[in-house]
This record gives sequence, C-alpha cells and structure tokens, in this order.
Amino acid sequence: MSTDQPNPRVRPVHPVDADVVDVPADVPTPVPDPDTDTAGDSATEPDHDPAEVRIAFLLFPDLTQLDLTGPAQVLSRVPGARVEYVAATLDPVPTDCGFALVPTTTIADAGPADVLVVPGGDGAFDAMLDPEVIGFVRREAERATWVTSVCTGAFVLGAAGLLAGKRATTHWASKPMLEAFGAQPVDDRIVDDGAVVTAAGVSAGIDMALWLAAELAGQPAAEAIQLQIEYDPQPPFDAGSAVRADAVVVARARAAAEAARGDRVTRAAAAVLL
Amino acid sequence: MSTDQPNPRVRPVHPVDADVVDVPADVPTPVPDPDTDTAGDSATEPDHDPAEVRIAFLLFPDLTQLDLTGPAQVLSRVPGARVEYVAATLDPVPTDCGFALVPTTTIADAGPADVLVVPGGDGAFDAMLDPEVIGFVRREAERATWVTSVCTGAFVLGAAGLLAGKRATTHWASKPMLEAFGAQPVDDRIVDDGAVVTAAGVSAGIDMALWLAAELAGQPAAEAIQLQIEYDPQPPFDAGSAVRADAVVVARARAAAEAARGDRVTRAAAAVLL
Repeated sequence: MSTDQPNPRVRPVHPVDADVVDVPADVPTPVPDPDTDTAGDSATEPDHDPAEVRIAFLLFPDLTQLDLTGPAQVLSRVPGARVEYVAATLDPVPTDCGFALVPTTTIADAGPADVLVVPGGDGAFDAMLDPEVIGFVRREAERATWVTSVCTGAFVLGAAGLLAGKRATTHWASKPMLEAFGAQPVDDRIVDDGAVVTAAGVSAGIDMALWLAAELAGQPAAEAIQLQIEYDPQPPFDAGSAVRADAVVVARARAAAEAARGDRVTRAAAAVLL
Repeated sequence: MSTDQPNPRVRPVHPVDADVVDVPADVPTPVPDPDTDTAGDSATEPDHDPAEVRIAFLLFPDLTQLDLTGPAQVLSRVPGARVEYVAATLDPVPTDCGFALVPTTTIADAGPADVLVVPGGDGAFDAMLDPEVIGFVRREAERATWVTSVCTGAFVLGAAGLLAGKRATTHWASKPMLEAFGAQPVDDRIVDDGAVVTAAGVSAGIDMALWLAAELAGQPAAEAIQLQIEYDPQPPFDAGSAVRADAVVVARARAAAEAARGDRVTRAAAAVLL
C-alpha cells in the first residue's frame, strides 16, 4: 500500500451537495471537512441521512465478478452502508463466471454516492468506450469522496480522465497500458492517490475494501468485518504475485493483454485527450 | 489444512455412473479409479465429456455471497470446468449483500456433478431444513467426487448426514454446533476428510478452491489461476482469525450464533438421526 501521500481527510464520508461545489468534470474532488462545513446540507439534500455511507458498485457485462463481490462482502457491512449496484438497465448482468448479477438501480436513476467501486474484467475494456458509463463515472466522481477500482476497472477510471497524473495500479498483465491515460503505474496492491484508490488484480479488491472500511468507519469496524469474513488468508501456494512469478510467463501475459486490448485502450485514451 | 489423511484418489475427476454404484444415500462415495475402471461409462453416460469437470454451486436465499463467488472465480477457471448454479427455481436468488444471483439450472433439472460447492450464510440454516435442498445434496453426494462447503454451508452437509464421524470446519462462530451432526470440529482453514471438504468462514472458500483446483487439475493449473486472480493477499490488519481474536469477542459471537440458530440446528440434527 502506498503511504507516502497522507490522506488529508479527517472523516471522509459525509453529505455533499454537488450542486454547490464547482469542480471540473474529469477529476474527483476532495470534499470539505464535515466538522467545519456541514451547514445547509440537510436543507439541500433532505433525503440523505448523514450517518449513511452511500456505496455504488458499477456493473457491466463480462465483469470479473470477484472484483465486485469481494469488496461488496466487506463494504456492505460498514456501519451505515447503503449499497447500490448500478447498471445501464435493470436486466441481469452476465459475469465471467457463468452467472448473472441483478442490478438494484440504473445509471439514469442512481443518486450520488460517497464511494464508487468500479470492477474490471474483459468487459471493462468495452465499458471504457461506452459514453453512458464514462458519463456516469465522471458524474459520480464529481461528488464522491472515494472513487475506487479493482483490477482492470482502473481503465474505466482512466477513460473518465481520473488517472491523469495519478499513481495507480491494476491487474499486473495490463499495468503498462495505464500510461496511455497519463497514469504512473505502481506495483503496490492498493494505491491511494487522493480520492482515487486503485487495487491490483481481482482478489486485491478485498484488501482494498478492508483498508477503505477503516477509512470510512475506523479500524475497529474494519477489523470486526475482517473477523466476520474470517479473512486470515492461507493460500495453499505462493503463486499470486506477478513480481515473484516467472518472468517469461509475465511477459507473455502482458503481450497477450496488449494484443487483445491495446487498440481499445488507445481509442479510449484518445477520447480523453480531446 | 489437514494433511494427516492422505487422499486416496489418484485423479478425482472422471465420469461416474451412479446407477451402477451401490451406495448408501447419506454418505459420499469414493469413486473407482478411471485408469482401471472406465469401461461402459461412455455407453451409460454418453452426454458427458470425460475431460469436463462438472461443478455445481448450490444457491439459496440469503446466502453469504462471497462463500460462493470466491470459489466460483477459482473453479470456473479450472481446465474443462463446466459450471452450474443450482437453485430451487430459476428466479434470482437474493444474497446478503443486496444483490441477487441468477441460477443457471434448477434442483429438478441439475445433472450429476463431479464437485458440489455449498455456501453458507444465514440462509444455510433454513436450507438445512428444506427437504428439497437436502435431497439434492444427498443425491449429488452419491455420485460426486468432492462434496464441499464454505462457512456455514457445512450445516447443510451435516443435515444431509454427510458429516457423521467426519472432521469438519465452518465459520468460527458456529463451529461448536457442528457436533450436533456427529462431526468433529477442527480449527483448520480447510478440512479434507475423504470426499467431504469443508472450509472455514467466507473468505476461506478461496483458499479451499485453489487447493481443490490443484486436486482437480494439478498444482501448475491451480498456480496459474492464482496468478490470474493476483491472489497474493495482503490484509491491511491482522484481524481475521478467531484463534487470535479477543476471547470475549469470540465467546460473545458464539453465544449469539447459538441463540440465533441453535434451535434450527437441533431440529435438523434430529431429522438426520431419524
């Protein structure tokens, strides 16, 4: 995890009225300190309980489901969590594992969230080129406290212009391609660069979500969730790190990812720069 | 992981014709070695490609979704995997995290599987008392090579009579209640007692699935999956083990689990013994 950029937020989850905050459309905004600047929130956003933590998960076809379901298992247990699963329509969304997930709301109907979680998977490279998805991510980023991605969900953030000049991570096989969006690829499992938090491949979302749970609700709450899900990992093999994996295997996978997805990344990056 | 009972199976996945194997209904059956006893399989089970690994995940309302989605992310990538998600009907099944999962087949229509995975969650304690679910688990256990559970899915196996005299594990807060089914509760994260494999709480299903992937397809295949899902866990806190957790917290959670679920366990256990 990156720790060289201390997080300026004392208490990151609180009501924010996006209408009264003037921000550029392509970058997330650190929000004001709730202890000194909450006046008027209840008047401008009467439906939002300040004790609630509004968490939105983006769904798109052919997502890698553990990118989403791992963090969902953690974040839905954060005290005050109100969780939504947001897709283009309410139709079930097929995942990479042969089952579909049912959204709870649509991009058109989704309200503002405090936390946005964008999963990855092959489908992320199509979502990256979908104006409706990118518009949603930009809109949420304007008012969310945290914009997060797991695995190649980072490319959706990149296509929304959120990674320009940021340190970021993604699935190891796709990491060099992040540079197309002006990001600085980092080998950490969780990279926290201001309001934008990116996690490495798939299972890294669980680690990221526990870290974020502590930011949202304090370390004791995060530790209680960790105990509830008995997250004391004991992988039977030491094979999960690309840093320690066979260099030929890693190079081959990176070349394959570049061949399969590089054109879409180039097109999405060109759109961001326009 | 328990290793004191070496697994007698040389190659556990292969076609089995349940009709020609006489087994009691309440225990899983080690199947014959495919290298010496495959004659007639193609005639009696023509639809089954021997290279396929048929994996069935049981779905029921209010499951803890990571119990299922973690192993699904691993096992669906096993070479030859043909994965089904089996529920009472094809209606979406609500999970504990606010989204629903869409089954791919029903209990009535599900064919035989080589591997059965039973997740846990509060809903497991109702599934445990559902004759249709228990009948399905018993039927699959008669012909599956592996019958597995994650978290409190172990109670569904117990209610099907599969844990009598077996070493087993489950979510730490519910572990003492396993004794109601004649099981010997064990503190390991993965417990392999013959054909019945039980995993500890929630996230332990990922470790179990990687171990099982190696049994099904060899360690190199399992390691490749582990690298694909970048499973190099780095929990931000050391809070996931009940063995190391605060004793008062653990005792209180066990008492709460007993109060909330003990009556259903007692009733299910009485039904098994009849």
